[in-house]
Amino acid sequence: MIVVMKAGVGADDVQRVIERVAELGLTPHLSKGEFRTIVGAIGQRSAQVQQQLEQLPGVDEVMAISQPYKLASREFHEADTILDINGIRVGGPHVNIIAGPCAIESREVLFTVGKAVKEAGASILRGGAFKPRSSPYSFQGRGREGLELLKEAGDELGMPTITEVVDPRDVPVVYEFADMFQIGARNMQNFNLLLEVGKTDKPVFIKRGLAAPITELLMSAEYVLSQGNHRVIVCERGIRTFADEVRFTLDVSAVPVIQERSHLPVFIDPSHAAGKRDLVPALALAGIAAGAQGAIIEVHSCPDRALCDGPQAVLPHNFHKLMEQIKQIAEIVGHRVTLWGREDAKPRKALAGGWAT
Amino acid sequence: MIVVMKAGVGADDVQRVIERVAELGLTPHLSKGEFRTIVGAIGQRSAQVQQQLEQLPGVDEVMAISQPYKLASREFHEADTILDINGIRVGGPHVNIIAGPCAIESREVLFTVGKAVKEAGASILRGGAFKPRSSPYSFQGRGREGLELLKEAGDELGMPTITEVVDPRDVPVVYEFADMFQIGARNMQNFNLLLEVGKTDKPVFIKRGLAAPITELLMSAEYVLSQGNHRVIVCERGIRTFADEVRFTLDVSAVPVIQERSHLPVFIDPSHAAGKRDLVPALALAGIAAGAQGAIIEVHSCPDRALCDGPQAVLPHNFHKLMEQIKQIAEIVGHRVTLWGREDAKPRKALAGGWAT
Amino acid sequence: MIVVMKAGVGADDVQRVIERVAELGLTPHLSKGEFRTIVGAIGQRSAQVQQQLEQLPGVDEVMAISQPYKLASREFHEADTILDINGIRVGGPHVNIIAGPCAIESREVLFTVGKAVKEAGASILRGGAFKPRSSPYSFQGRGREGLELLKEAGDELGMPTITEVVDPRDVPVVYEFADMFQIGARNMQNFNLLLEVGKTDKPVFIKRGLAAPITELLMSAEYVLSQGNHRVIVCERGIRTFADEVRFTLDVSAVPVIQERSHLPVFIDPSHAAGKRDLVPALALAGIAAGAQGAIIEVHSCPDRALCDGPQAVLPHNFHKLMEQIKQIAEIVGHRVTLWGREDAKPRKALAGGWAT
Amino acid sequence: MIVVMKAGVGADDVQRVIERVAELGLTPHLSKGEFRTIVGAIGQRSAQVQQQLEQLPGVDEVMAISQPYKLASREFHEADTILDINGIRVGGPHVNIIAGPCAIESREVLFTVGKAVKEAGASILRGGAFKPRSSPYSFQGRGREGLELLKEAGDELGMPTITEVVDPRDVPVVYEFADMFQIGARNMQNFNLLLEVGKTDKPVFIKRGLAAPITELLMSAEYVLSQGNHRVIVCERGIRTFADEVRFTLDVSAVPVIQERSHLPVFIDPSHAAGKRDLVPALALAGIAAGAQGAIIEVHSCPDRALCDGPQAVLPHNFHKLMEQIKQIAEIVGHRVTLWGREDAKPRKALAGGWAT
Repeated sequence: MIVVMKAGVGADDVQRVIERVAELGLTPHLSKGEFRTIVGAIGQRSAQVQQQLEQLPGVDEVMAISQPYKLASREFHEADTILDINGIRVGGPHVNIIAGPCAIESREVLFTVGKAVKEAGASILRGGAFKPRSSPYSFQGRGREGLELLKEAGDELGMPTITEVVDPRDVPVVYEFADMFQIGARNMQNFNLLLEVGKTDKPVFIKRGLAAPITELLMSAEYVLSQGNHRVIVCERGIRTFADEVRFTLDVSAVPVIQERSHLPVFIDPSHAAGKRDLVPALALAGIAAGAQGAIIEVHSCPDRALCDGPQAVLPHNFHKLMEQIKQIAEIVGHRVTLWGREDAKPRKALAGGWAT
Repeated sequence: MIVVMKAGVGADDVQRVIERVAELGLTPHLSKGEFRTIVGAIGQRSAQVQQQLEQLPGVDEVMAISQPYKLASREFHEADTILDINGIRVGGPHVNIIAGPCAIESREVLFTVGKAVKEAGASILRGGAFKPRSSPYSFQGRGREGLELLKEAGDELGMPTITEVVDPRDVPVVYEFADMFQIGARNMQNFNLLLEVGKTDKPVFIKRGLAAPITELLMSAEYVLSQGNHRVIVCERGIRTFADEVRFTLDVSAVPVIQERSHLPVFIDPSHAAGKRDLVPALALAGIAAGAQGAIIEVHSCPDRALCDGPQAVLPHNFHKLMEQIKQIAEIVGHRVTLWGREDAKPRKALAGGWAT
Repeated sequence: MIVVMKAGVGADDVQRVIERVAELGLTPHLSKGEFRTIVGAIGQRSAQVQQQLEQLPGVDEVMAISQPYKLASREFHEADTILDINGIRVGGPHVNIIAGPCAIESREVLFTVGKAVKEAGASILRGGAFKPRSSPYSFQGRGREGLELLKEAGDELGMPTITEVVDPRDVPVVYEFADMFQIGARNMQNFNLLLEVGKTDKPVFIKRGLAAPITELLMSAEYVLSQGNHRVIVCERGIRTFADEVRFTLDVSAVPVIQERSHLPVFIDPSHAAGKRDLVPALALAGIAAGAQGAIIEVHSCPDRALCDGPQAVLPHNFHKLMEQIKQIAEIVGHRVTLWGREDAKPRKALAGGWAT
Repeated sequence: MIVVMKAGVGADDVQRVIERVAELGLTPHLSKGEFRTIVGAIGQRSAQVQQQLEQLPGVDEVMAISQPYKLASREFHEADTILDINGIRVGGPHVNIIAGPCAIESREVLFTVGKAVKEAGASILRGGAFKPRSSPYSFQGRGREGLELLKEAGDELGMPTITEVVDPRDVPVVYEFADMFQIGARNMQNFNLLLEVGKTDKPVFIKRGLAAPITELLMSAEYVLSQGNHRVIVCERGIRTFADEVRFTLDVSAVPVIQERSHLPVFIDPSHAAGKRDLVPALALAGIAAGAQGAIIEVHSCPDRALCDGPQAVLPHNFHKLMEQIKQIAEIVGHRVTLWGREDAKPRKALAGGWAT
């Protein structure tokens, strides 16, 4: 950390900062400029120490020069993390598409959609059993019964499954039936929930909160990692801005920014960002072109009868067309990764391997 | 709801909408304009129905013309809700200040600060036992032990207490020791947590999420109300915007907007919005001037040693001065409320009564 | 417009609205629901009329159901506008890349960069002569002298040129030397400037303001179109949000949203959004994948000596690689456009034609 | 500036930075930490130098530790600036209210409203002759004819007048007829316009742009100051955020933040922020309570017939009531300023002096 003193402070204020830095277990380092004096505080960064230094007399600002996360950072783990999920490789040069209905409404819809998305090339099956709904009067999901259906579909199709968990008390039942935990945007900072899934050995897919800076998203990943579960994927799903023509603004720049800072696989969610299906393909392709290592896409066989988020669900035959374009763009980006300096990139063949199920 | 058809749609598309509206249990009402046809869908609004109608061929937009919350609305309950919390009246013309340290760190700090804020005129004591921290490496609060200290302080000072609950599993222990539940901004849409506190009979203080429109805040209140707990207070605490000179942008206009739509008491949190103590008085006074029925303010006796959020804690002697100004501005606003048409406003004496502890 | 009355209003309030609607030259249409009464106001929308109706007693809300722009809308002109700029076709299935240095600093840099971007496949040359700088102490551009150099470079390379105009008084001199006017984000609502360029016959390239909803961007296009200049291109260049990891958040969803509403060509500016060159390729590819009909990219031969915005300028050899990827993704999207229903899409050959200079 | 090197960079990279800092005319200062090396660059800050250093190999970040404005800063001018505008004192402890209709529509409205606001205690008369409208089809103001009416009204009422200027070419005519220039939010970064008004000797009232950080607002003030015109007032008027319940989010914290950094008077505009008159009083009082040195408020005698922004105009009799509350709150805040340490605060009598017309 760097403690920037106010212009014109006295020597005693500077001395007090130096002493306090030492008292807090850091090594002080004085540097006098023409207008300002700065004191370096060398050692482990911590929010508490930073806040305490900020309040000393004469201090203008305390700047951190390292990120607050460790296990999630590229400094800690330089190469891309590549997960093995029931034989599917996720991360690095591999691009994976997670698809399925928003909510598990009926066996028929789940199996119809599951079969269609598998044929189109999706590698992981999604379906919601516990639905966080902003209204207490909306359909809240089918709970354990939905989880059982999801497991049955995954087994029959030979696809790993993912479903959202919203309550620490549900972690055991979700663990029993699903292959991956999804942490929704509204729970990105539900820290006890993060701790619970962090104690398991199943992959955790964390969506960025609607108003979360990337540092906070990676800190939420850090919560899981800190418990010993190193199988984390993060997902950009749209942020809340003034631009209300779409439901959320897909922050496509988050993809390369996270990849620069972290080794974790980065996905995008074009469905929740768009809010309507006509926009899903453009956003999905944009995300893949920006280098995302996957996407989670809602597909429904009769969306105008869906109990939840029907307008954003893509129809199966359009999903099929979209997958063709995703595959082509992923290949082009495979080359880009190589050319633009990420050492982990693999030639086209390896990338194509990401599509195998 | 109003279904707006696209320009130039055929009669069959309009007919299909009319039939579907009826099929969904609503009464259709056709209205043809020069350029557009609209179909009114008369009956109970629901997100699911709205989404299903949006997807019919030829439909441009489905507009809701009523709010999605009921119990929280002024339509449902016209007069301001006034709560009685251990004899303290909250809401309506009464202005209450909740004050105390961010976290319960030690008995000494808690009692010193509690005594000071009571003397200055605060009516409710705050203190955090479970701290939601963005870093897993930060101080996480003292848990049950902290709750016991808080209860002891509240009993000794004769003040009701409030503390944050972050996990549905902690609702019983918080219920045992504290007088009010606080739901933090990051948990505003932790729906299972809202349901749990909604099943109790203690007041629930809900902070607005960092990116929550007012409708979503009132829907979260609705979650609690729908469980039978009618003792809810909502709190504006700053939203996330591009303006990063302060930690969060205090949306002072939320106060009159919520009061127009809902009967629930509205508080503000100047401490978390400001992020630094020099700005707290200006924001606190702004909120009270805008008509807030209270504020929650962090006070610490030695903030540069605080384990959490020290920079935003006001010193006790400054809190005392601030309270003097708050009292004066509250009186002026009491008059304003009368003049500007809120029927529930009371003359100065009644308002002053809000300060009694 | 639809006038939504408050719940429980009297018949006289409704009658007054009906009369005022007629008095304002519109045709009223009454529709009574279970809870609410609405009055349709059929005829030409106008902000003034809407505002006047909003204030009548008993009125809850006045909703517009048509867009406020006409000439810029798809309703007015269904097919994509395709411009011919010195023989270059812009819009529809054609994808064009505008490239060059941020500011025209020296003949040498301009010609070196111009030659490099032409070879890589850019079809239009950019260079700033009047630089809007947030500091009065920064380099403000070389003015007329810069324009002369730009014209010389354009002539020698056989490329149309584009440059920013910031003052209505400079329109004649920019008209004399450049082939296209650029209106910067900070001038998107400099209405007198829009009127001046609207009176000319040269294409106008309008960048979206940092906080402009898409409707406002298209209204700014309408200003130009309303003066008789129908050669307008609009450009998404990043919006201001809380996400400050990049300079601006590229709102990639703006591309398909604008294309749905308007016939005008839509470009993106990855350079100003990114703020640093490492992110430019990911954003450029994302925009093209989302269907943008072009991009404007800053290229510099020695960016660490640039007088303006050096960090976001791509090096010539990297620009060359980026162009290869852009070409491939544009082709894939050409297919997508066909598949996803935009009638104007052309087969691959026509699309490739967009690259010819 | 502080150049932060990446973790693990070589000595040659550090050496190159040191040399370049010196070459750019600054004094380098090396400081090695446990994980990072930093190089101080001591001397005058400049965006160009910062950008050039950012691009050197091994550099992670270049942090500025001083503000980019000078003449607008408290460092340059410690005491509050107090302007004398035709005998009215503006700034420091003086609170002034600017009021009048949005646009100058007719002599009758202007004089009726002018008389009413003067009687209520407003000290400066506003009225728009050149209206920046987002639609080319909206009423654009009465131009010179409107200015003549404004001057006539100001002369008759003995009030200084303010009106918006939107085009550098209109500066002379506005100078001739009005006492103050208003620069609207959409023109905050119309730099040539700022330069033109900076060359005059009449006060310039600059509204904050919808998406402008405070630094950019003060840089726009710097443009005017740099031309020798030291009579500048800045105004917070609402920013664009996701919160669309009001037209713009009044950033009330901007008031104390600007006052901490700058000596210029700070006003607020509750009318444009609110967008509807019911919210104007709450926002006006909030701004004054936060310490604003004035407000600009739209008043109209028959707003439902207004040609522009009628819904946000307050009725004269309500403006009168609002002024009574503003006066009382301003007094309380006068005391607060004293108590909270701003040296320039004056006792109640001096403050009251601000109200004299």
